[in-house]
Amino acid sequence: MYRSHSCGELRESDINKTVTLAGWVQKSRDKGFMVWVDLRDRYGVTQLIFDEERTSTEIIEKAKSLGREFVIQVTGEVIERVSKNDKIPTGGIEVLVSELTILNESKLPPFTIENDTDGGEDIRMKYRYLDIRRNPVKDSLVFRHKVTMEVRKYLSEKSFIEIETPYLIKSTPEGARDFVVPSRMNEGQFYALPQSPQTFKQLLMVGGMDKYFQIVKCFRDEDLRADRQPEFTQIDCEMTFVEQEDILNTFEGLTRHLLKEINGVEVDKFPRMLYDDAMRLYGNDKPDIRFGMQFGEMNEVAKHKDFNVFNQAELVVGIAVPGGNAYTRKQIDNLIKWVKRPQIGALGMVYCRVNEDGSFKSSVDKFYDQDDLTKWAEVTGAKPGDLICVLSGETNKVRAQLSALRMHLAEELGLRKPDEFAPLWVVDFPLLELDEETGHYHAMHHPFTSPKPGQLELLDSKPGEVKANAYDLVLNGNEIGGGSIRIHDKETQQIMLKHLGFSDEEAKAQFGFLMDAFEYGAPPHGGIAFGLDRLVAILAGQETIRDFIAFPKNNSGRDVMIDAPAPLDEEQLKELNIKLDM
Amino acid sequence: MYRSHSCGELRESDINKTVTLAGWVQKSRDKGFMVWVDLRDRYGVTQLIFDEERTSTEIIEKAKSLGREFVIQVTGEVIERVSKNDKIPTGGIEVLVSELTILNESKLPPFTIENDTDGGEDIRMKYRYLDIRRNPVKDSLVFRHKVTMEVRKYLSEKSFIEIETPYLIKSTPEGARDFVVPSRMNEGQFYALPQSPQTFKQLLMVGGMDKYFQIVKCFRDEDLRADRQPEFTQIDCEMTFVEQEDILNTFEGLTRHLLKEINGVEVDKFPRMLYDDAMRLYGNDKPDIRFGMQFGEMNEVAKHKDFNVFNQAELVVGIAVPGGNAYTRKQIDNLIKWVKRPQIGALGMVYCRVNEDGSFKSSVDKFYDQDDLTKWAEVTGAKPGDLICVLSGETNKVRAQLSALRMHLAEELGLRKPDEFAPLWVVDFPLLELDEETGHYHAMHHPFTSPKPGQLELLDSKPGEVKANAYDLVLNGNEIGGGSIRIHDKETQQIMLKHLGFSDEEAKAQFGFLMDAFEYGAPPHGGIAFGLDRLVAILAGQETIRDFIAFPKNNSGRDVMIDAPAPLDEEQLKELNIKLDM
Repeated sequence: MYRSHSCGELRESDINKTVTLAGWVQKSRDKGFMVWVDLRDRYGVTQLIFDEERTSTEIIEKAKSLGREFVIQVTGEVIERVSKNDKIPTGGIEVLVSELTILNESKLPPFTIENDTDGGEDIRMKYRYLDIRRNPVKDSLVFRHKVTMEVRKYLSEKSFIEIETPYLIKSTPEGARDFVVPSRMNEGQFYALPQSPQTFKQLLMVGGMDKYFQIVKCFRDEDLRADRQPEFTQIDCEMTFVEQEDILNTFEGLTRHLLKEINGVEVDKFPRMLYDDAMRLYGNDKPDIRFGMQFGEMNEVAKHKDFNVFNQAELVVGIAVPGGNAYTRKQIDNLIKWVKRPQIGALGMVYCRVNEDGSFKSSVDKFYDQDDLTKWAEVTGAKPGDLICVLSGETNKVRAQLSALRMHLAEELGLRKPDEFAPLWVVDFPLLELDEETGHYHAMHHPFTSPKPGQLELLDSKPGEVKANAYDLVLNGNEIGGGSIRIHDKETQQIMLKHLGFSDEEAKAQFGFLMDAFEYGAPPHGGIAFGLDRLVAILAGQETIRDFIAFPKNNSGRDVMIDAPAPLDEEQLKELNIKLDM
Repeated sequence: MYRSHSCGELRESDINKTVTLAGWVQKSRDKGFMVWVDLRDRYGVTQLIFDEERTSTEIIEKAKSLGREFVIQVTGEVIERVSKNDKIPTGGIEVLVSELTILNESKLPPFTIENDTDGGEDIRMKYRYLDIRRNPVKDSLVFRHKVTMEVRKYLSEKSFIEIETPYLIKSTPEGARDFVVPSRMNEGQFYALPQSPQTFKQLLMVGGMDKYFQIVKCFRDEDLRADRQPEFTQIDCEMTFVEQEDILNTFEGLTRHLLKEINGVEVDKFPRMLYDDAMRLYGNDKPDIRFGMQFGEMNEVAKHKDFNVFNQAELVVGIAVPGGNAYTRKQIDNLIKWVKRPQIGALGMVYCRVNEDGSFKSSVDKFYDQDDLTKWAEVTGAKPGDLICVLSGETNKVRAQLSALRMHLAEELGLRKPDEFAPLWVVDFPLLELDEETGHYHAMHHPFTSPKPGQLELLDSKPGEVKANAYDLVLNGNEIGGGSIRIHDKETQQIMLKHLGFSDEEAKAQFGFLMDAFEYGAPPHGGIAFGLDRLVAILAGQETIRDFIAFPKNNSGRDVMIDAPAPLDEEQLKELNIKLDM
């Protein structure tokens, strides 16, 4: 045993005890006749003291030789500190060292091991094992563990069983994003890594397991947009003999439990919003409802005059920015520039100031009079002192643009408070989504999602309007979970696959086992999957997930620390019966 | 909500309640005027009753149409059973059905969904979702969940943090057994799936995480010996600032906790045995110590006469079979045949009966007199009524043979009781192991295992004799966990890798990141990994792991249910920049 206590443990009640500690040298101060060392481990920091009067010359000399991040073991007496530090729990004491062993030396780290480090992203990733020593990363990993333990405890208590599903599975039609694995024993054949355990959890329901969950890695080989990882973790869940309402209640319970246990926040029943309403009111299927600024659709109050930009637009839509009338002309110009950036893509922005006296001043006064603008204010809910921002164009695009503007403004106005939690169920998602490139419909959730009762018939005539038993859980403007009630009969599944463009042969080859299973007493079932990386980040009040992953990959899917992926040698390729084709 | 209660829940206290149940038709009995149906779900079986007097004609007709494994929902009144079944918890009641809905039909299952099914291994694997409905499989999966929850709770309470390490890593020198994954984004480069998270958990220790665990899938692409899986699960653990003693105590605590919570068995301090003693006394590094039959080495009492078979052998070694004198000549001949099977490979077996009067009768009476045989009995601990079995030959081989015989006899004698638990630490493993094929030494545990203090110097002169800080936890003759104290300084690691045949370049290419890490304040650390699949099976008193894995693969590494692995199409290969080379 290298230590009697951790570095976060000693208090004034331990004074006079002889203790042994081990840890890393956080920093040292050498006053010549006296040396202080901050000794750090996962649990905290304890101040060590060496002085000429009470410490042997040999030891004080050794203490003076200690560099940052040296690993040492010390024995000494806990004494009261002269100048206490009430910022840390051990701040009332220090350890007067009588024995000092250097367990390992350290080269000077390439960046400082401090909360605010001088190291950039790249160097910290290369030396991730040093980055992890920093509190922001260390605490994030500990936090993640706490969340997963609470998830497991809660679900276990609700009779859910964690079941491991296989990682070496079969490539699926969305195979373009599958990672594949050549099999040595089955020449010329490949496994695929799961994008999710979807079909397996459904088979577990067919198998009568009733309530399943799994915290599980999933894999997707695709261009990594910001803050995505090729391997990511889901809390994957499925239940039998349930309707949508049962799923929502169960996982609302889980989320409420986490908010309470982890964040100490009590949340009432989660509000629910139709997908269509979310799109209409927030331009987005994952609205942040910590603040208002709902969209006002303005076609009726804006398309009756000679302003052609609006008249030609499919949708004219605005938001009221609280207190926005205080913006200078320059600030407003910057907003206009912001929405015109290629990432947002608006062609322009109309605005209207609502003066404190209730009068209006718009950028389109030439076309709209005070009566018109009064209606704009009504539609957008603008009050004296606000600014109305109006975008127009093709419905889907303009909604996305105004949604981005809304979030941007809320960020600037400090309305997205990290310690406030506003969960929301978005329900009744469309079953299908039009791929604008190919002109084909594909499953918005996945091919196993059931349409709402009675809507199967619409598949031929109005595929875009068919609603699904599908739902997302949104927290503070992020989708943290999504799921659906599944199809559980072979016929419906066949119809769905046909509509998604699978031939009978393809359907059989890819999902034959699932459809076979549906013929042997498949029960009604449904589920949900949470993105754990993001959930944890949001619960911690953060927006980026990287600090919550011990060894993340960069945007090229590389682990720069171990330098993977890497080439294989010829012999290894030969054994796998593959060769490069570049 | 499809149900008010589960099928395992209703008791006599529920009589007169109106309830709704959903589940599968286990079986039905149609007496014409009366129909009984056993309704099953994960939680149990409830008897449903339909009769002419109390049930509508329509419903009773529908009940008669129900086939095995149909999924139904019923509403009815809980009534007292006329003839109670005290073998099941719901045996005091039945439900008089007033409403019946068929939620899904079922084709006739290809095998019976019973504890003892008529289905063979192959068909059950193909229809694993039906196999899972059977109690032996279902209960095994629930049991596994219970074990993993207890592991997580125990380790969390001891300040261990579960941290996910990456699945997409870099191929290692034991690469011949790596599964690899071509990267689409990094042309011509490959990830590998981890055989274990070994280096990552060590980096977490360098990163100061102090106490880590993870229940994690590992992968090994090798010919599957019986009861091995290409993907398997480990409880992977690592601790900082520990010596071997600390690791043994910590994980003895975990194992004791599991035995108590899961099996209700209290076990005292686990015995410890040196590797050398285990080999000498049991011929095996994972001895089953639920019973005796220790080896007696007999060179001194058997090589002094004219019996050349013994005189020419490196080792003569015997065991006393309790009560074995009762064996007939034919039974003994069968034992001799058994050890001569190619799987065991002995050339023959000498035996000696110990009569009740203390006299001896051996198969080599021509060479050995009663005084000699008295010594044989002393050395093997044989008592009157026992049978001494003696094998001879090259030490390693004869130990393995006698060990196999010992286990075989214990099995036959009923000495391997599934409800008895005999854990054992085997310690001081050799650092290196001679590969008889190549004549090279390789790491017995892995290249990161530290030699015992002061033994590094022996590496050049007597590599086979160097002992490691390595230990195995053995339970009932199975290795359930193994680990070591790791090397934590660059120099020692370099020496080790050199001795394992790595050139400096190879060492740097493969483990450069780890040796770099050792230069930045690496603390002393060590750990252990448990094979979860086997641990769970053994705790459940089983020897095969397949029923404890939801979707296992067969001996060719195939999932016959989903038919994986499978060929990829040309386009997909092209995108991955590889082609087949067969």
